[in-house]
Amino acid sequence: MSSTDLTLDEQDIHFLLKDWLNVSRLSQYDSFKDFDQETIEMLVEEGLRFATDVVAPSRTESDRHGCRMEDGRVVTPECMKEPYRKGYELGWAALNASPEYGGQGAPASVGLAVNEGINAGNPGLSAHFALTIGAARLVESFGSEELKAKYIERMNRGEFNGTMCLSEPHAGSDVGAGLTTAEDAGDGTYRIKGTKSWISNGDTDLAENSIHAVLARIKGAPEGTGGLSLFLIPHTLVEEDGKLGAWNDVTVASIENKMGLHSSPTAVLKFGENDHCRGWLLGEENRGMSCMFQMMNEARIGTALIGLANGSAAYQNALSYARERVQGTHISKIREPGTPRVAIIEHPAVRYNLMQMKGKVEGMRALLYATANILDDLECLDQEDPLYEDSRMLLDILTPLCKGWCTETGIDVVRTAIQVLGGVGYTKDFPLEQMYRDIRVSAIYEGTTDIQALDLVGRKMTLQNGALFQSLMGRFSSNLEKNRENPQLQAAYQQWEKQCETVYEMAMASKEVVEDRGIEGVALYATPFLKFLATVAAAGFLLEQAVIAVSKLDQLIAEKAVKDSDLEAFLENNPEARFFNNKRITAQNFVDTIVPEAEALLAGAKSRNYGALDINF
Amino acid sequence: MSSTDLTLDEQDIHFLLKDWLNVSRLSQYDSFKDFDQETIEMLVEEGLRFATDVVAPSRTESDRHGCRMEDGRVVTPECMKEPYRKGYELGWAALNASPEYGGQGAPASVGLAVNEGINAGNPGLSAHFALTIGAARLVESFGSEELKAKYIERMNRGEFNGTMCLSEPHAGSDVGAGLTTAEDAGDGTYRIKGTKSWISNGDTDLAENSIHAVLARIKGAPEGTGGLSLFLIPHTLVEEDGKLGAWNDVTVASIENKMGLHSSPTAVLKFGENDHCRGWLLGEENRGMSCMFQMMNEARIGTALIGLANGSAAYQNALSYARERVQGTHISKIREPGTPRVAIIEHPAVRYNLMQMKGKVEGMRALLYATANILDDLECLDQEDPLYEDSRMLLDILTPLCKGWCTETGIDVVRTAIQVLGGVGYTKDFPLEQMYRDIRVSAIYEGTTDIQALDLVGRKMTLQNGALFQSLMGRFSSNLEKNRENPQLQAAYQQWEKQCETVYEMAMASKEVVEDRGIEGVALYATPFLKFLATVAAAGFLLEQAVIAVSKLDQLIAEKAVKDSDLEAFLENNPEARFFNNKRITAQNFVDTIVPEAEALLAGAKSRNYGALDINF
Repeated sequence: MSSTDLTLDEQDIHFLLKDWLNVSRLSQYDSFKDFDQETIEMLVEEGLRFATDVVAPSRTESDRHGCRMEDGRVVTPECMKEPYRKGYELGWAALNASPEYGGQGAPASVGLAVNEGINAGNPGLSAHFALTIGAARLVESFGSEELKAKYIERMNRGEFNGTMCLSEPHAGSDVGAGLTTAEDAGDGTYRIKGTKSWISNGDTDLAENSIHAVLARIKGAPEGTGGLSLFLIPHTLVEEDGKLGAWNDVTVASIENKMGLHSSPTAVLKFGENDHCRGWLLGEENRGMSCMFQMMNEARIGTALIGLANGSAAYQNALSYARERVQGTHISKIREPGTPRVAIIEHPAVRYNLMQMKGKVEGMRALLYATANILDDLECLDQEDPLYEDSRMLLDILTPLCKGWCTETGIDVVRTAIQVLGGVGYTKDFPLEQMYRDIRVSAIYEGTTDIQALDLVGRKMTLQNGALFQSLMGRFSSNLEKNRENPQLQAAYQQWEKQCETVYEMAMASKEVVEDRGIEGVALYATPFLKFLATVAAAGFLLEQAVIAVSKLDQLIAEKAVKDSDLEAFLENNPEARFFNNKRITAQNFVDTIVPEAEALLAGAKSRNYGALDINF
Repeated sequence: MSSTDLTLDEQDIHFLLKDWLNVSRLSQYDSFKDFDQETIEMLVEEGLRFATDVVAPSRTESDRHGCRMEDGRVVTPECMKEPYRKGYELGWAALNASPEYGGQGAPASVGLAVNEGINAGNPGLSAHFALTIGAARLVESFGSEELKAKYIERMNRGEFNGTMCLSEPHAGSDVGAGLTTAEDAGDGTYRIKGTKSWISNGDTDLAENSIHAVLARIKGAPEGTGGLSLFLIPHTLVEEDGKLGAWNDVTVASIENKMGLHSSPTAVLKFGENDHCRGWLLGEENRGMSCMFQMMNEARIGTALIGLANGSAAYQNALSYARERVQGTHISKIREPGTPRVAIIEHPAVRYNLMQMKGKVEGMRALLYATANILDDLECLDQEDPLYEDSRMLLDILTPLCKGWCTETGIDVVRTAIQVLGGVGYTKDFPLEQMYRDIRVSAIYEGTTDIQALDLVGRKMTLQNGALFQSLMGRFSSNLEKNRENPQLQAAYQQWEKQCETVYEMAMASKEVVEDRGIEGVALYATPFLKFLATVAAAGFLLEQAVIAVSKLDQLIAEKAVKDSDLEAFLENNPEARFFNNKRITAQNFVDTIVPEAEALLAGAKSRNYGALDINF
């Protein structure tokens, strides 16, 4: 552990995959038959080592050098080249990609675990890997056999880079207002014309070519998102024999000058300035938005991961610093002369900050890994299986919670970590300064927090007559029924049960709110509701983990015949026992402190304060 | 108004000074006899124009260039020179300084108003001005006549720069652990030896000389803060005739490489590396800490101002952007085809963010201006006057609330403002990106938020048997008694009364907590308590303002004989009426949303969760 190097919480990651989610059960299915417990453990261990040893050393340097434009193309920092190359060589970059097309075919939850490390090591590189897999998967889902053969494997090998192009200068969150056009060229291709902005890794020198997944409107198609089609547009055309051919009239107009995330260029791309940009349709005409949602949903979980990965890394750095840094005396002895100085981890205010960070980080991890594991279930289950539909609904409602809450919470955690370090945390001598800048964008791109909240409240809560929400509440209920009598967690479960009830009441009250103040009244408190629901969901998952942990601790105590009087020393000296005991404390703390904070964001909704709608700014 | 240029909320500032605090009443006292209403208004107006026209243009450039070391001295960005020079020439830099020594002698509240502008214009420059005044005032309070004559006026003219030197590399928050020594040279000076770190403007080329106020331990003095003495140490010695003489053995070892605030160099200074650094005692031996507290308390309010000034500027930029930026359709018409796009200020989620920002900014302004106005009272009142003691107690308890809450809240506001802008808010094309980096340090320096909370809970709440707290509660009570029946604010006052009661209960419960869990139990929730008490105090001040505003609105309506049916149009078109009406909405929103959020930070304290103390990280 160190306050400057990357430390990953391997113990928690392995506990979640093995003891909580039991991911190796998936090996009974054909899709993941090679992923038994031993393989998973080894993969995660080695993947995380790759993250700390190969990826993390590039983080600071890539921030200081950044990307630049040279002769109309993006030049990435030199230090990115080795982790990029090795990422593909060793298989980490395409861990989740289809084995049919050169990927490793690992479960999403296992991929997420490795990517937690890679993302903490260098979030720009992680975004690059993830977006390329996502774009390749779009081709796999919606491309012709020819496109599949031409592109997917080379994307999964890192020869080609993949992007998603939705936003335009005057259509950011409002994708349906996009002006990019497509015209049928009559030869199976379309002539594309338009400008796309905010394109992550929109151009790069790490790969030989960039393959853009672009939303455009075919001439004559309806307005709004319902008239958008999805196109594959290579930067450079690929000949029949696979060789790179002519330039496809994609111009890299500029890259943004950002606060952080300097290892990931954000480009403005112009398609067809010279009228010879060709695009290939992916999926059906006018169905582009629904095709793109596949990639967007993956990207939302990937963006949520920035919150978890950087939050966790920041917590670990702050924890190390708090153990190392000696300053001040213990508060209970502050008036006694000659009292020795202590490490700042002894100070209650520092412990408060560390506890909040720990709870939030483990809450984020619980929420994200559970969601990834649902993706795995969907991969394995038969679509006729009733569990399939339930899982799909859970995935749909959890996705905006992951994106909205984990990014905002990651920002909170890094902010608190800097506070633990004090002045040095504000300097470039420690990595937190960069994390604070890097992580800020996560709550903006892939749909801002407010967009996630609208997706939750305006779509996911109402779809299928509220069935998605009921499915999540159902998961809460079965957790309660199964565990609420657990003697060591009864108080926590009681607290959580009340919070679940409040979630339900607030959701039901929305009808009255609509009667009172129209849909605006509900939309006004959509983001607070998202944050509250996300913490309640995370709390439920942390409680499930705590149930397992207390039972494992009891088992350990019995095995080692630890006497009551020796318990404290046992917990002090046995890292596993300490971990299990901390899970209980963390879950209790989460329901006692973190959920109430999120619930308080709804105080105005409860008292029906619509001042923000009434005011004339 | 603009989303990139600095906009100051002059309407709110004037309302606070005139209608709420009635600062011109101070002109009845000798100290401020020249500051009648007209003079105050003119001063504030012109001072704020200086801020927007002369100071603000330096902000971005000073960030991009930053300070650097050259031949062992600090070189500041070229663009700082003109606002620095003009600030002194025109009197804005020393507005609060003693008229006896070349300052303008303005009330603290008037100075704060102008400094809100200067700080928003360039917080590094504002810090420079404020620290120099603070150091000059230390000389005025504790220096010999010789020192006063030699230094104060030149500091107030900007020829000399002033600093405060407390921290050392191994003693940041723990000042008493400082190792810098002083040895009586027998000629009225002391030989100083030691290293001081985190010295804001520790060296500069804007002034001819730097005058350091340094804490050091005279050989043989006791350990801890009780053995520290305060010394004046010029970088370059000043001869009898005022000419600059020999170098005083003060070495600028390095400056920090920070996330932001690049216009303000943060230096490590070495005193007496060559054994010829001379210092002059300020105040009595071993009383240095209590002398320094004068400057620290001023600096704490000055640091709180960073939160207000930058929060307000960020809110104004976000508000402009929300008015200008057209995207998406009104949510009530989202399903109707052909609905026109609207400015994003129409979207409920954006309005929520703007409302939260507005409330927090006005809450910070209320808290800070009230505190500055108490400083003015103390300047005018006879020390025998019972009001004097009450004001002093209020000042002492409000200071940590200002510093702790306004800095954290300013950070919140800038974060939210970026969210309103979306992607562009993350780029250097808009000023929020820099504000986000600049403002982050405010919660760290001059005592971190947790240090403020310890000062509040460990000292201010217990001093004189709780009299300071009682004095604040007394102010709450008289506000309640006077205004709780106000027909337009009854609901808000009811809500606030409950919050005041909770403050009292939480404070009283601390005895039980000490019995349960020792002083650690209280210290654990000290920062949440600070935030809660600060919001309750700010709410009380906003309610007082709302009482004035609704009465002024009624008056306006009567004067103009506005009919009920025309009220909406009147509020729309009359800026003053709108301002008054918004004050009511803002106060109500503050007690309904912002106070409960802060109260929720105490949920763990209420349920006596001590997990953070129990856990073995």
